[in-house]
Amino acid sequence: MARVSQEHLDARRRQILDGAALCFARNGFHATSMQDVLKEVGLSAGAVYRYFRGKDELITAIVSEVLADIGEIFESAARQSPPPPPDVLVVRVLAEVLDLRPGMREGARSSFPRLMIQVWTETLRDEELSALIGDVYAKVRGSWMAIVEGYQEAGVMRADIPADHVARTMIAMVQGFAAQYALFDEVPIEALRDGLRALMSMGRPAEG
Amino acid sequence: MARVSQEHLDARRRQILDGAALCFARNGFHATSMQDVLKEVGLSAGAVYRYFRGKDELITAIVSEVLADIGEIFESAARQSPPPPPDVLVVRVLAEVLDLRPGMREGARSSFPRLMIQVWTETLRDEELSALIGDVYAKVRGSWMAIVEGYQEAGVMRADIPADHVARTMIAMVQGFAAQYALFDEVPIEALRDGLRALMSMGRPAEG
Repeated sequence: MARVSQEHLDARRRQILDGAALCFARNGFHATSMQDVLKEVGLSAGAVYRYFRGKDELITAIVSEVLADIGEIFESAARQSPPPPPDVLVVRVLAEVLDLRPGMREGARSSFPRLMIQVWTETLRDEELSALIGDVYAKVRGSWMAIVEGYQEAGVMRADIPADHVARTMIAMVQGFAAQYALFDEVPIEALRDGLRALMSMGRPAEG
Repeated sequence: MARVSQEHLDARRRQILDGAALCFARNGFHATSMQDVLKEVGLSAGAVYRYFRGKDELITAIVSEVLADIGEIFESAARQSPPPPPDVLVVRVLAEVLDLRPGMREGARSSFPRLMIQVWTETLRDEELSALIGDVYAKVRGSWMAIVEGYQEAGVMRADIPADHVARTMIAMVQGFAAQYALFDEVPIEALRDGLRALMSMGRPAEG
């Protein structure tokens, strides 16, 4: 048997995951067959089954990776010092989520947000994946609460509202905007930054 | 043949739609079989097929109804005069979305946001449904832009940011928070109102 380098094995595994992710983003986990995946990646069933025992294993691998990657983007955004204001923070995270899989583009448009929504539905019907997304969300919320507490301690945000509620709201904006990006014609992501900036201006007492 | 009142026919149709919606919310459109639906509604195949020729017709009926209902909630919120401030508006819409199907509850928790996410994924793979959700979103955005322009004209929001961007951001908050409600343990929806209220306070110049 020919010796195959670890590098080659990793690249082949990556190729399968990326091709499958494209299929799943387009058509969902359940309407996609292993035949669709084989056709997309251009490999034989034998080659693919050496890496993944079946569709379920492939789904679990993709869902876990997507959640870990999204979680890391939210977390690393929260580690910046000093933390940027909310309008800058949310658009930065959104931009990084869209850039997460450079291979997942149809024209200029990232298919990743579509995959993200498919991942959400998959966690609804699988307890293990549901626990996993719950863990990722809890960690992200924790880091974003710390940022919010920073705003509050610096006196730039009213401090009588639980940081958790603000963190949830900021995360919801990113999630909802990513969903719009997946569902509708191209949306300029700066709209999120500008929109939040306008909302942030409302605390000022009305002029005149 | 026994005469059957229109009222009876409508009620039976409603019963099928509600039972199927529950199945789809739990398990997705594609992993749910017509057998699952028949079991849930407690009717024979013959009875159900009198109303819907098959699963595809049932899916189309449910997706169309969900989109129309959600659209109407966003629209009617925008018709209030005077329009409430953004923090009040978004939480009102979210609360109404959660109350949309009183029958779709597991304990105190609404399953409707789960169905909403399933509907999103279904529009990704069906051009007709994709056009439909696009139309609903365009109308909602239009109405919410009018509210935003109202804030701007009243001088309570900076006016140099396109109303469309603010409308998209507010809608994203509701969508993202509904997704969190579907995906995670119970989330107090007032968190969205409070979170936005805190963000709105940031426009004030830092004290001290």
